[in-house]
Order: sequence, then C-alpha cells, then structure tokens
Amino acid sequence: MSTINNRIQRLRKAMQQHQLDAYIVPSSDAHQSEYVNAHWKSRAWISGFTGSAGLVIITQNHAGLWTDSRYFLQAETELADSEMVLHRQGVPHAPEHNTWLRDNLPAGATIGIDGQVFSLGQLQRMKQVIGSKNVTIDTSHDLFKTIWEDRPSLPLAPILEHDVQYAGQSRIDKIATIRKKMQSKGVAYHLVTTLDDIAWIFNIRGTDVDFNPLALAYAVIGLKDTWLFIAPQKVPTELGDTLKKENITLLAYSSIQKFLLSLPKRDKILINPATINIALFDLLTSQQIVKGYTISTPLKAVKNSVEISHLRKTMAKDGVALLQLYRWLMSELNHRSVTEYEVGQQLVVFRSKQGEYRGESFPAIVGYQGNGAIVHYRPSSNNSSDIKKEGILLLDSGGQYEDGTTDITRTFALGTPTDEQRTNYTLVLKGHIALSQLVFPKGTKGVQIDALARQHLWQHHLNYGHGTGHGVGFFLNVHEGPQSISPNALRSTATFEPGMLTSNEPGFYKTGEYGIRIENLVLCVEAGKSDFGTFYQFDSVSLFPYDPQLIDVSLLTAKEIDWINTYHQKVKDSLSPLLKEEERVWLEEQCKPIL
Amino acid sequence: MSTINNRIQRLRKAMQQHQLDAYIVPSSDAHQSEYVNAHWKSRAWISGFTGSAGLVIITQNHAGLWTDSRYFLQAETELADSEMVLHRQGVPHAPEHNTWLRDNLPAGATIGIDGQVFSLGQLQRMKQVIGSKNVTIDTSHDLFKTIWEDRPSLPLAPILEHDVQYAGQSRIDKIATIRKKMQSKGVAYHLVTTLDDIAWIFNIRGTDVDFNPLALAYAVIGLKDTWLFIAPQKVPTELGDTLKKENITLLAYSSIQKFLLSLPKRDKILINPATINIALFDLLTSQQIVKGYTISTPLKAVKNSVEISHLRKTMAKDGVALLQLYRWLMSELNHRSVTEYEVGQQLVVFRSKQGEYRGESFPAIVGYQGNGAIVHYRPSSNNSSDIKKEGILLLDSGGQYEDGTTDITRTFALGTPTDEQRTNYTLVLKGHIALSQLVFPKGTKGVQIDALARQHLWQHHLNYGHGTGHGVGFFLNVHEGPQSISPNALRSTATFEPGMLTSNEPGFYKTGEYGIRIENLVLCVEAGKSDFGTFYQFDSVSLFPYDPQLIDVSLLTAKEIDWINTYHQKVKDSLSPLLKEEERVWLEEQCKPIL
Repeated sequence: MSTINNRIQRLRKAMQQHQLDAYIVPSSDAHQSEYVNAHWKSRAWISGFTGSAGLVIITQNHAGLWTDSRYFLQAETELADSEMVLHRQGVPHAPEHNTWLRDNLPAGATIGIDGQVFSLGQLQRMKQVIGSKNVTIDTSHDLFKTIWEDRPSLPLAPILEHDVQYAGQSRIDKIATIRKKMQSKGVAYHLVTTLDDIAWIFNIRGTDVDFNPLALAYAVIGLKDTWLFIAPQKVPTELGDTLKKENITLLAYSSIQKFLLSLPKRDKILINPATINIALFDLLTSQQIVKGYTISTPLKAVKNSVEISHLRKTMAKDGVALLQLYRWLMSELNHRSVTEYEVGQQLVVFRSKQGEYRGESFPAIVGYQGNGAIVHYRPSSNNSSDIKKEGILLLDSGGQYEDGTTDITRTFALGTPTDEQRTNYTLVLKGHIALSQLVFPKGTKGVQIDALARQHLWQHHLNYGHGTGHGVGFFLNVHEGPQSISPNALRSTATFEPGMLTSNEPGFYKTGEYGIRIENLVLCVEAGKSDFGTFYQFDSVSLFPYDPQLIDVSLLTAKEIDWINTYHQKVKDSLSPLLKEEERVWLEEQCKPIL
Repeated sequence: MSTINNRIQRLRKAMQQHQLDAYIVPSSDAHQSEYVNAHWKSRAWISGFTGSAGLVIITQNHAGLWTDSRYFLQAETELADSEMVLHRQGVPHAPEHNTWLRDNLPAGATIGIDGQVFSLGQLQRMKQVIGSKNVTIDTSHDLFKTIWEDRPSLPLAPILEHDVQYAGQSRIDKIATIRKKMQSKGVAYHLVTTLDDIAWIFNIRGTDVDFNPLALAYAVIGLKDTWLFIAPQKVPTELGDTLKKENITLLAYSSIQKFLLSLPKRDKILINPATINIALFDLLTSQQIVKGYTISTPLKAVKNSVEISHLRKTMAKDGVALLQLYRWLMSELNHRSVTEYEVGQQLVVFRSKQGEYRGESFPAIVGYQGNGAIVHYRPSSNNSSDIKKEGILLLDSGGQYEDGTTDITRTFALGTPTDEQRTNYTLVLKGHIALSQLVFPKGTKGVQIDALARQHLWQHHLNYGHGTGHGVGFFLNVHEGPQSISPNALRSTATFEPGMLTSNEPGFYKTGEYGIRIENLVLCVEAGKSDFGTFYQFDSVSLFPYDPQLIDVSLLTAKEIDWINTYHQKVKDSLSPLLKEEERVWLEEQCKPIL
C-alpha cells in the first residue's frame, strides 16, 4: 500500500473510533496565516499534495482534494500513486467542497473538524451551505495528534526584537493607542490572533513560517494589562526582561485557552470573527463577545515617518540587487541558457549582499515565455524552463529586510520583442502610469480606482484576472490589509490614508505565449488641500527602470512620457550612488529620456 | 395665530387624544415616490415648507422641520411666520431627526406615524437609532384624516395605455417573464407597490404626480392570476375590457389591504423591504414573506429594441427643441434680458412643438452665473435672475415623450468666458468623454468607473459633490434604478447590461460664480467579444453640440478631439434633417471640427 493510502486508512480508523462520517483537513493554521509552519501541514501529509492552497475531505469510501487551477498539474502528479481524487475547484459547475458534503453525506452524518484550524467565518459559510441538511459538525477533533507520529512539533526558534529605530514606534505607544480605541468601543479586552498584528504590536519578529517574519503567539490586551502567549523558550532572556518591565505578562502559547476561560464573564472582549479560530471562539460566552476588526490592522497599514524613511532606502537597495541580477542574467545568456529557478536563486544572492536582508518576501515568480502567463507560476529546482536570449521574461520578487519589505515586478524583452508584445506592454504601462500620476480625494476606496489601471487594455478588449494592488507590510507580510485595489466592490472598500503602502501591478497574459506585469510599491502621500477638500496621490517608491525596448512611445500621451522620464530620473538619482561605474553607465542608458 | 401655528395646534390636540408624544410627518406617499400627489402633501400643509425634501416632527412643545442645504434659504423664508424651527440636516454635528427623537423624548414616550407613508426600511433605520431607548412607535395614525378638512382627495384622472408600438413588449409577455422569476424564487405571489414598476408592467401611464407619468395603483401578480388595484373611475372602459380579457382583475385601490389579508397563509409572497409601506407589511405573516428586489426593476432598466429605436429619434426631437431654445435666447439677449424662469417656460414651448410630448421630466434647472453653482437650483416665477449677454448659463432639463424620456445638460458661455472657466469646462468635458469612449467588461459596476469622470478635476484638486450618473426610464421616471455611476461602493453595485440608459453628467461648481455640468444620456451597447470575455461601451444618444467657446483644445488629447468631432458629426447628421435652413447653418458652424 502506498504511504498516502496507508495514512488515509489510519485516519479512517480514527474516524470510526470517534464515529465521524467525514473529516475535513484544511491548509490553515490556528492563526489563519497565508503560509503555515510544518506542524500544521497535515493536509500535505495526508494527501501528498504540497501546493499552498487545497482542502482534503476523507470519508470511509472517498478521499478528495479540492484545489484551484493554479495547482491542477502539480496535484495530478502528486496524487498519482494514491486513492486521493482531485476535485477541480473554480471550474464552472464543479461542486465546491461544501456542496459536495451536502450532496454526498447521508442524513444524520457527523463531520469532524479541528476547530483550531477553522475560522469562525469558514464555519459559518459551511453551515450556510449544508445547514439545510440534518448533519452534525463536531469541531473538537485533531485526529493528527494520534495518527501522525512524526508530526513536527511547534517551532521553538527564538524571536528577535524589531528595533524601534526601524519600527519607529514603541510597543508601549502602540498598546496605548489600541487601548484608546478599546475604550471608545466599550471593551475590557482585545484578543489578537493574527501573527502579523502580534508582530507589529510587540515589535517582535520570528521565523516560524516561510516568507513572513512571524512568531507563533496569541495576545490579549486589557485596559491595564497585556498578555503575550508564546513558548517561553522562544523569548531571549533580555527581551523577556524588557517585556516584563513594560508590564507585558508572558504566558505559554497553549495557555491561551485556559486564560480566555478565566476572564470575568461580565467583561466585553473584542474579537475578529474573520480570523478567530473556532476552538478559541467557543470558549467565550455571547455576552462577552464584541465582534469587530483587529484594532492594530489599520494602524499597521499606515507607515510612520521612521518606517517611511527606512523603506525609501530599502527600495534603493532592492533596486540595486535587481539591477545586478538583470546584468548578470544578460551576461550569462551570451554564452549559455539559464533556468528560471537559477534566476530566483541568484536574485537571493544579490539581495543578501544588501544590508539587513532577512530572506524572500514570497517565492520568486520567474516566468519565461508561456510560463509568464501562468499568474501564480513558481519554478522549482526540478521543474523550471531554460531561458535563452529571446522572448519575454516576467520577474516578480521581493525581499524581507529589517528596514522594510519589497515587492517588485518587471517584464524584460530578452531578444527583439514583437509589435504585439510592445503594444500590450505599453497598454499595461499606461494603466500603471494612470495610477502612478492619479490625484484623488480623501475617502477614495480601491474599488473606485481599479479601472484606471485597466482602461487601456479594456479599450482593446483585453483584461487581467487578478487585482491591481494589495497592501504591503514593513518587515512583515507582503500581503496585508485593509486597503486593496480591485474590482471587488465588497472587499476593496478601505479608504486610502497617507502612509499606506500598496502595490500597483496591472498585467496582461497571453496563454502559452507570454506574460506581462509591471509592479511598483506606491506610498499614499498628501497632494494638497483646496476648497474641495484634501487630496492624496501615490509616490512610486520601488526603483527600477521599465524596459525601453518594450515601450511603444507612439501609444503614449505627452503626460505619460513626462511621467516615465521623471520616474527614470528618480531611479537614476537614487540608485547611482550605490552602483559601480559600469553599472552606473548601464543605468544611465536605461534611464535616458524616451522622447 | 398664523395659519401654520393653528394647524400645528390642531395636530397637537389630535396627538393628545391618541396619547402620542411625538408625531412624524415625512414627504413621501404610500409608494415611496420621488414626487407625490397633492393628497400626500401633508408635510407642506403642516409646515408651510413647499420644498420636495423634508420631514416634520411635532411634539407638545416643539415643531421642527429637517431639510438639507438645498432648501435652507427657502425654508427660512417659508417658516418665518410660524413656530416651526428649521433643523439644518447634513451640516456637521447637526442632530439628524432620529437622533433628535432619541435625545429629546422622555423614556416611555409614544411616537405616532402613519404606516402608509413609511417604508419598512425607514422604520428599521429609525429603530436602529432610537431602539436603545424605551420608546413605542405606533404606526397606525393618519391624523391628517381628521384635522386637514380640505385635504385633496386621491386623484381620479384617467390612465392611458402606453401603446405596445412604443413599449415594445406586451403586458402579457412582461407578466409571463415575472412569473418565471417568481417560480425560480419559489413564491406564489409578488406584491408590487412602486408606481413606475406598475406602469411598466401593465403598459399604463397616468398624471397623478408631477413629472413622472404615473398612476396610483398597487399590483399583485400570482402564478396564474394578476390583480391591479386602482380607482375604477381611472380606467377607460375600453382599456378595462382589454385588461379583463387578459385575465387581469381590477380591484379598488383601497382594497389592497383586505386582499393581502385574504391570501392563503401557507403561500409565499415576494415583497421589497426597501419600498413596501409598513401598513401593508404588517398585514402579512413572517411565514408568508420573502424579501427581495421588485422583479420588474432590472427588466424595466434594460430597454428593448423597440424602445431603443424610439428613444434614438426622441433624442433628436429633444435636441431640436434645445437648439431652438438656445437660438431664441441668444436672439432675445441682443435686445433685452431674459429671466431664468422664462428660459424654462420657453423650453417647454419648444419641446411641446415636438410630437408625442407629454411634459417636463423634472423641473428645469436654469442656473445663471452663481445660481449655476447651486446644484439643485430651480428658478420660480417670483424668484429668478435676469440673464444678460455675458457669463455662464447652466441648463439641465428633460422631456417626457410617449416615445421616451430625455435629460440633457449643456453649459453655455453667453459672453467671452475667462481662461479659468474654459479650463474648468474642459476638465469636466474630459471626464465626460472618458466615460463616453470607455470600453469595459461585462460585470462592471458604476462604482468602478465613476472616478474616470473625475480624474482630470482631481488632478487640479477639484471635484463635484453629486453622483456621475443615474438610470433613466422610457416615458417613465427620469431617475430609476438599479444602475448608477457614483463613488458609493454600497449603492452603485448593479452591473451594466446592454440596453440600460444612464446619464453621464460630471460637473464643477464655483460657489457664487458659476456652475458647469455636461450631461448626455448613454445607452449601454455591446462592444465585442474576445478571449477575455464580452465587452460593453456607452453610446451617447443625447444630441446637442458642446459650446466650442468653452473648450480649451490645448488641454485635450488627440483621442478626445477625435471623439468630440465624431460626436458633433453625429449631432449634425441626426438633427439637420429636422431643421430649418438657418438652424442648419448655425448647427453646421457649432459642429465644425475643433481641430
């Protein structure tokens, strides 16, 4: 029997013992993180599927994996040796996993889940779909505890303090601001479960998950006291002493449950229903609960002046690394082909030569030719195309530096591009510029400005299937809320505030041929005040020239040409002092006025 | 004692008899109409305030009128002789009427309202604000029944059939389509209370309210039977016979209540909570009620091919009337001044010379100089400025024709405009053109494209305080849903569908100096299909040239100039066959290429 089938059988035995007719294994951890620690990779363990998004359902006679089109090929390969069946999600009329449960479980069935890795929101959506059926959902089962013998234990790597010289605001100040908001909401406690919020509030960072510099922890903020729930081994003595001096009580990570139960029943506790896991939620009474957003989330999104002055320098460092990578690649291509994977690895080499580098902010997307049209394409050591001195390369990557997080995409013509490629690149660039030079009133939301980035593609009956922008953290998650730029009128509703850092990344993808994306991070800054209110604009803080070979100047307006020339001048001025002479000469050539 | 104070005293006496501590008088009728019949103008009767928006609250020691800034001046004048106090709404920190009730009524108080003129949605908002207080809302009191002796009775003017040669679809077909939707929603009945929906479904029109060609009625559509509740005197014999033959049962307007009570309690009834009045809602059991939108509303919004071919011709007729008005005005101004009011009256004269004209679609906005900056300015016979051959005139007007409803705004320079006026006019025009030439994918919502009309003003830190576009009916209400173009992410969420008629009307207003607005009606049409889906665009169907004196060509792109020249060519081609020689010569001059 294959390893996976064997694991499935052991899970089924455990299900029988607990009288469960179905067991659901999601990809998440107890904090609803985008990336999870090895301890929580039970979905990969039970299915053999290692992609980042997917959900498994096991019954006595079926084992299914639900995932979306990004992972179809990978899942087919990885599931080949087991009884696990691939359910293609997002394909029209394919049953989504909740509807599959509703349609395939007998009346009276019991579904088992581990309430620690399901959010309240997810459970509510599940109940909406299968609620009409006489089915019980039992959230108390972490079956992997018994069947997964060599399950990695929770990580104990030490956390580090994110120095206030980078963070710009002390944890005491941050907690004081949060308490003011708590008072205005009439709550005595605020439970924080999201790891980036905890990292930001306490000015700590960790290495517990890939790409996001986070540490596993919970926090409860009271009106006078603060409790941080984290494995004691993870806290360096000196930092532990400082935290205690600052009236922050350290408790074991696992003691959060007992602590929540011990809180006075008459006091109100603010929780975020979108991210709290069910195991914690179930410990509180409905009298105690006040639902709302996590108070630190919008505070964290607005970068302070210290963070801003750091991130401007970080963007220059990051631009230098990208410049060195590009020059290295073009030079290598003169005498050999280079794999996409190698490009990603070499980029890490160049970034790590820059100060304060702590790793990639996400797995680099190096998409050559048709691979560039696969929106979430990621080359791996054993699956990666050869790049030659021709065609189009899409390169989307970012770094985690103690003094900021970067995320930049450039598209390069490695040979002579076709007219069609130049036209489509220029249409994408025009959308990118439309946001870059936009002035907009206070109160503007992402959904209102998304179309500005698409209008020129639309004119040619073209479009792209992803959002235009996401919030970016400061030495934190490369994806963070609350703001975004997307056509989704229900989700893209946070207003822009000065200090918010957001990506501006329109694209165009021709299946099987090439992908184009152009991405800068943009900082919301004040543009001015008038009788009509306060106006903001975006300052493009990422620093790297656009490939002049791909720009069709005849499609640009005078204002767009001006904007490119001004931006290229800024790139040159910012990067040149950090470059060697030959690099400087190259940059000078790349940045010369396009008209 | 003044007439108004006397009326207030009589209302207070009636309140005492019914033990009511406060009585609320809104502006609406039983159908939540934008304009109401004289029978329902009780708010004007009790307050003396004749503006279209406002709400009165009477207690034993206070009489207050809540209205917004459009009406402050008018309300001050009209309330001067009474004890009625003006509460300025929309002013920062001014208590909104529900908060006033919450803060000023004693615990245990009873508020009386007439449930016929309050929608369920309004009552729910009221309860949200004052719900925390121990206050009773009694919805059973139409006190004006007794205290308003000379209250106008309900209108009995005859309805007319809107011929299918105009409507393009028979009422039998429309009802069949509605029944299909009802079946998919699992309801046995659909209650329709909004007058424009009833007019559209039954292909009838009336004269019961100003500007909207509506008849007072209710309708209930069953899966087999249909009931129309309308005063029998209003239905011409022949039409009555036709309706009966088509299995539509006519019942008295007032019998709707008894009828709803008589419906089987086990059957589901679809109602619209946003528009149903409380008196009707309270007759149904919660088992019977299914809440949703009125099925005909999105159907009505999509004009059929017959309506479209009519409305294209109607726009030409309407353009001719506006052309004649403009030429008349410029000729009069050579030897005398003309009042704003006179311009509106004269426009009616020119429109009524066109075939199928049935009246104005809203009171004409003729705003000369600073009056043009008052967004909802309406001149009246006794309050109207003199127009001379200088400055800027904003003219927003529309007509009701049996073959379509029009709404068009043009801004004219009557003398030589200043550079600032030309710049700002051109910025508004650029926004108007941005929507006019936009191509967008199926699924696009108004909130996504509103900023395209504002972007050029924003760049100069300018803006306008109203939405960019509203839906328009066909010989029906000049304001109709569901689509709109506005920054409101919660309200502007209906997607555009081919056949929808919407206004495109950005503006700019300089307080005390001048107002600029440019408005065409635009029809959503298919632009094409590609690998990226189906794309739509707007066809500008209103036909009148933009004032060339106000256009600063140096601010326009080549594409914008092309668009203007192409549009002007279309105006010339469409209107010329309907014009006299000298009019044609004038139009030729106005429409000549701007570059």
